[in-house]
Amino acid sequence: MTTTPRGNLRPLPPGSVRLTGGFLAARQRTVRDTSLLAGLDRLRVAGNIHNFEVAAGRASGGHGHADALDGDVKNFVDSDLYKWLEAVAWTDSGAVPQAVAQAADEAIELIAAAQADDGYLNTWYQMGPPSERFSNLQFGHEMYCLGHLIQAATAFHHARSDARLLAVAVRAADLLVQRFGLNGQPVVCGHPEIEMALVGLARATDRRDYVDLAAALIDRRGHGTLGPGRFGAAYYQDRLPVRDLVRLEGHAVRALYLSSGIVDVATATGDDTLLAASRRHWDALVAGQTYITGGVGSRQLGESLGEPYELPPDLAYCETCAGIALIMWSWRLLLVERDGRYADMIERALYNAVLPGMGLEGATFFYDNKLQVRAPFQRQPWFEIACCPPNLMRLLTSIDQYTATQDDHGIQIHQYGACHVAADHGRTLAIATAYPAEGHIEILVNSTDSVPWTLSLRIPAWTGQDATVAINGRPLPLTSEDGYAQLSRQWAPGDTVTLDLAPQPRLTWPDQRIDAVRGTAAIEYGPLVYCLESTDLPHQATLTADQAGCDALNGIRLCLGPAPRRDGQDIGGLPTLVVDAVRDQVGGPAWPYSADRYAANGTPGTSPESVRLIPYALWANRGPSTMRVFLPT
Amino acid sequence: MTTTPRGNLRPLPPGSVRLTGGFLAARQRTVRDTSLLAGLDRLRVAGNIHNFEVAAGRASGGHGHADALDGDVKNFVDSDLYKWLEAVAWTDSGAVPQAVAQAADEAIELIAAAQADDGYLNTWYQMGPPSERFSNLQFGHEMYCLGHLIQAATAFHHARSDARLLAVAVRAADLLVQRFGLNGQPVVCGHPEIEMALVGLARATDRRDYVDLAAALIDRRGHGTLGPGRFGAAYYQDRLPVRDLVRLEGHAVRALYLSSGIVDVATATGDDTLLAASRRHWDALVAGQTYITGGVGSRQLGESLGEPYELPPDLAYCETCAGIALIMWSWRLLLVERDGRYADMIERALYNAVLPGMGLEGATFFYDNKLQVRAPFQRQPWFEIACCPPNLMRLLTSIDQYTATQDDHGIQIHQYGACHVAADHGRTLAIATAYPAEGHIEILVNSTDSVPWTLSLRIPAWTGQDATVAINGRPLPLTSEDGYAQLSRQWAPGDTVTLDLAPQPRLTWPDQRIDAVRGTAAIEYGPLVYCLESTDLPHQATLTADQAGCDALNGIRLCLGPAPRRDGQDIGGLPTLVVDAVRDQVGGPAWPYSADRYAANGTPGTSPESVRLIPYALWANRGPSTMRVFLPT
Repeated sequence: MTTTPRGNLRPLPPGSVRLTGGFLAARQRTVRDTSLLAGLDRLRVAGNIHNFEVAAGRASGGHGHADALDGDVKNFVDSDLYKWLEAVAWTDSGAVPQAVAQAADEAIELIAAAQADDGYLNTWYQMGPPSERFSNLQFGHEMYCLGHLIQAATAFHHARSDARLLAVAVRAADLLVQRFGLNGQPVVCGHPEIEMALVGLARATDRRDYVDLAAALIDRRGHGTLGPGRFGAAYYQDRLPVRDLVRLEGHAVRALYLSSGIVDVATATGDDTLLAASRRHWDALVAGQTYITGGVGSRQLGESLGEPYELPPDLAYCETCAGIALIMWSWRLLLVERDGRYADMIERALYNAVLPGMGLEGATFFYDNKLQVRAPFQRQPWFEIACCPPNLMRLLTSIDQYTATQDDHGIQIHQYGACHVAADHGRTLAIATAYPAEGHIEILVNSTDSVPWTLSLRIPAWTGQDATVAINGRPLPLTSEDGYAQLSRQWAPGDTVTLDLAPQPRLTWPDQRIDAVRGTAAIEYGPLVYCLESTDLPHQATLTADQAGCDALNGIRLCLGPAPRRDGQDIGGLPTLVVDAVRDQVGGPAWPYSADRYAANGTPGTSPESVRLIPYALWANRGPSTMRVFLPT
Repeated sequence: MTTTPRGNLRPLPPGSVRLTGGFLAARQRTVRDTSLLAGLDRLRVAGNIHNFEVAAGRASGGHGHADALDGDVKNFVDSDLYKWLEAVAWTDSGAVPQAVAQAADEAIELIAAAQADDGYLNTWYQMGPPSERFSNLQFGHEMYCLGHLIQAATAFHHARSDARLLAVAVRAADLLVQRFGLNGQPVVCGHPEIEMALVGLARATDRRDYVDLAAALIDRRGHGTLGPGRFGAAYYQDRLPVRDLVRLEGHAVRALYLSSGIVDVATATGDDTLLAASRRHWDALVAGQTYITGGVGSRQLGESLGEPYELPPDLAYCETCAGIALIMWSWRLLLVERDGRYADMIERALYNAVLPGMGLEGATFFYDNKLQVRAPFQRQPWFEIACCPPNLMRLLTSIDQYTATQDDHGIQIHQYGACHVAADHGRTLAIATAYPAEGHIEILVNSTDSVPWTLSLRIPAWTGQDATVAINGRPLPLTSEDGYAQLSRQWAPGDTVTLDLAPQPRLTWPDQRIDAVRGTAAIEYGPLVYCLESTDLPHQATLTADQAGCDALNGIRLCLGPAPRRDGQDIGGLPTLVVDAVRDQVGGPAWPYSADRYAANGTPGTSPESVRLIPYALWANRGPSTMRVFLPT
């Protein structure tokens, strides 16, 4: 039922791509074997599951959150369980830990039992008076939670052919259509999410009215339905109609979830002006509101996007969920637009805005991902508002789905990792690579039909000068169109494509309009952004920040002569780099603003030393430290 | 009863110094003639006065805040009226507008009527069940409000010899002594303020137990009394005992109000280790947590102080109240320490952290004072949380009290402005100056006794090379000790001291550890920090920020050759400056991080133009604009 006006790419069904090795596969295994269990434990302890038991009449008790903050209404916590369930759904059923599989099975049954006769489902409001339901559209989070329910349901439907949760989702969606559809109350939810979920449910059920509701929920925005609220209408995505917005604003996750729904609706309805608005928003976001990591959200207050070029590294918010949302939105635009820029951004955000959100052990998480930390900042086992950890789990368990697509002409590879790919017409590929540690990628055609088809390979914007491509050992000119090399031929089993992206450690300079990082540079290698962590200082300061009055990274300045280079070492499976740096003598002045420029600059260091950099994704895994991505030059 | 262990300076009684002309006197008149009336109107509309009528049993109604936010407990709003009353108290009674005088008189009577029999007074809790009183120490704000009541009461006592409010304050303080004194519950209030108020009340009433309570409230901090709370114990100044803190942390206004109380208690009790802690906190704050404006508070989230050198200009909080609190604390240290650094900071914060908080017309206010604004940011008539406007009023109506002190050896002049000063022994001075527009200051001894005494004149740290001092036209060497020139002689009526501080527009460079302003400089003149406001661009961009994708100030770069200079113009009575700048061609890249350093920097502008700068205190008085203090070089 989905129409794609520009024609373009079709996702492969769940299970058609399986990561088989390398860094991403290892992170996926960690989620499967550690995070899902840890998350289950946290959901139990925090009371999320208990809430459903109360709503189902199987337990008594209050709102189930003994640790609730004063006056806090935790009406959004059902979504944590739904996202965890979605993560389980995307995981190979044979490999899911038994305790997880059983808990998921019980949770599905419990959720169905908790659903009210009319389809309503939100345990917070089910534990209170019925009159409160849908009474607080700004902050009620009811449609938001149902959106996550629907996404978990369609995941179980597509990946497991398990329709139990889908039945719950359909009943809930039918209630929404009845209450808020074209003949219902013309309102919206303060936290977008339901829009993309409804379009997904429409695809799973062939129900046009779900798309109509999603479209209405988008076009109703910007007409004051929600009022100014505590943080202003922009926070809720309700200041201007989305078609009139020049750039995204307000709460970053709200903005990007809504954007994903906008592309879904535009695709489903063929609404090109709506699609054009979303493209414009994406371009503006990427041009001036995105960190080098692909993180978005410059302001802690209101967890919101900033003005163009307001990108402070130390006060960055870059919520893990916002990085995930940028991937979801970029993926939808990629399917329509077939432009490697979107796949480049998915890769950037994955490695540098989402993966830092989880510790190497898989059981601690960042909610916000700063690019500079002056005092130790540690991942936490869970959060009072625990949206990020299960969101990260559902993304990582489904990350193979972002790897490849197909269209009428062939197969497109968007993300690189060791994997198997199975497309239509019996076309299967085996990809061997140590990417992103190395740029060498071997693609073996395992099976194919005899009809000629095109293998499209993304050539990232950062691809090195020495990049090469060859088929069966015969070099070809490496050219790319809209970010893809197109290899067309009658493929035969055993054919091998060898692509080498030739990544080199590189310096990257921020636009001068990004005031907060003027006079600095970052170091990247392939898709990875690097950082300096105090742990790796050659002579680590033994003074604590309290004693020193500043953190140990102050005064470290990059030498621009020698290029950054690999040092043959690695951390967590990714290479480390070295750069030459000096340590300036800083400190002293009782007032840090001086008429003497040189006094303000300190005494320049003169003996360059090699300093180790690690992938930003892997910082804060070796004990308390400070860190920075952008280094003064 | 106050002992000053280090001896030192004694404030002159209220009324002993009167500003007679110039910029500060004009601001004071604006408060008197405009702000007090506007504030009264806002207090009536917002319901602050109605609350007292309800508590006094003269009106019915709820909490009186029709505009209260969802779930917000506005238990702190009594303090707004108290601060407004204090501002009235400090104003020459003959010059107070009649409507203000009458409203103040009625308010005092109403407050007395609202007070409970046991001395309790907080209208929010008086409108609710008695069991809630003092039950929420974290956020109840009861002692905080009583602190402001006490300060208003001592102001009326000292400045007007009006003891009505003092009687109310004593009853309230007695209740606090009984409940929370040495034999009471060992708790503290989540928002410091009561500490300095109690020491002030002790001075007015000669009651030692008030000092004992204040001392206890300080030493109880850091022992977990308040629990972690919503923002962590540091927010409430309860993470560590104040004597153990290396530097201030958490909510800026809380931290600095507490610091003022600490110095008051240390002075009253002769507790040198407590005083030493506060000196250490001040040094650390000034060395790494203070903006060039004297503003403090780097984080919008929690309105809090940042790590050392975390001083972003665009996300600066710099609450107007925090600037006021820095003045209050610095003043207390100045009295004890007699060091011009404290008076310098009072001047800096007054002109650049507090005065920007009020529009030239006197009826609009900033709550936070950013040093860079990329999208128009306007002063507001009032705020949901309206602490700043009446705080600014009470500071400005009492600002003459910060001008001069006396000790056994003579008179000290700390701040310059046209004024009359009357000290003990019949010593009176008339000061004529256009300061801070000009650096020339004439001090006429109007009357004096025949005993030799010392006139101490602050020589600010920024004083120019050509500064001079002369007595009766005879030049003297200009030397200063701890920031003061000491002129000792047997003075005679008609003696004239001529001081010229010779301010020159100057470039000021930030310490390299302040990452957020690397590669920039600020321009200062005398005590004034300057800024570039988009209104003054030679060819102001006609594009809106939405159209341009960035604000009109992007690409403006300071030329370092020609020095900044005066242009003979002024704004609001203060001189404007000009600098040479080029406008770089910026813009274009779809991704603002580039391997090409020069692409990131844009195309350098080559034709310097004169660009006008205005005092930061006076920006945002000429319609929507963007602004920045630190300019790229």
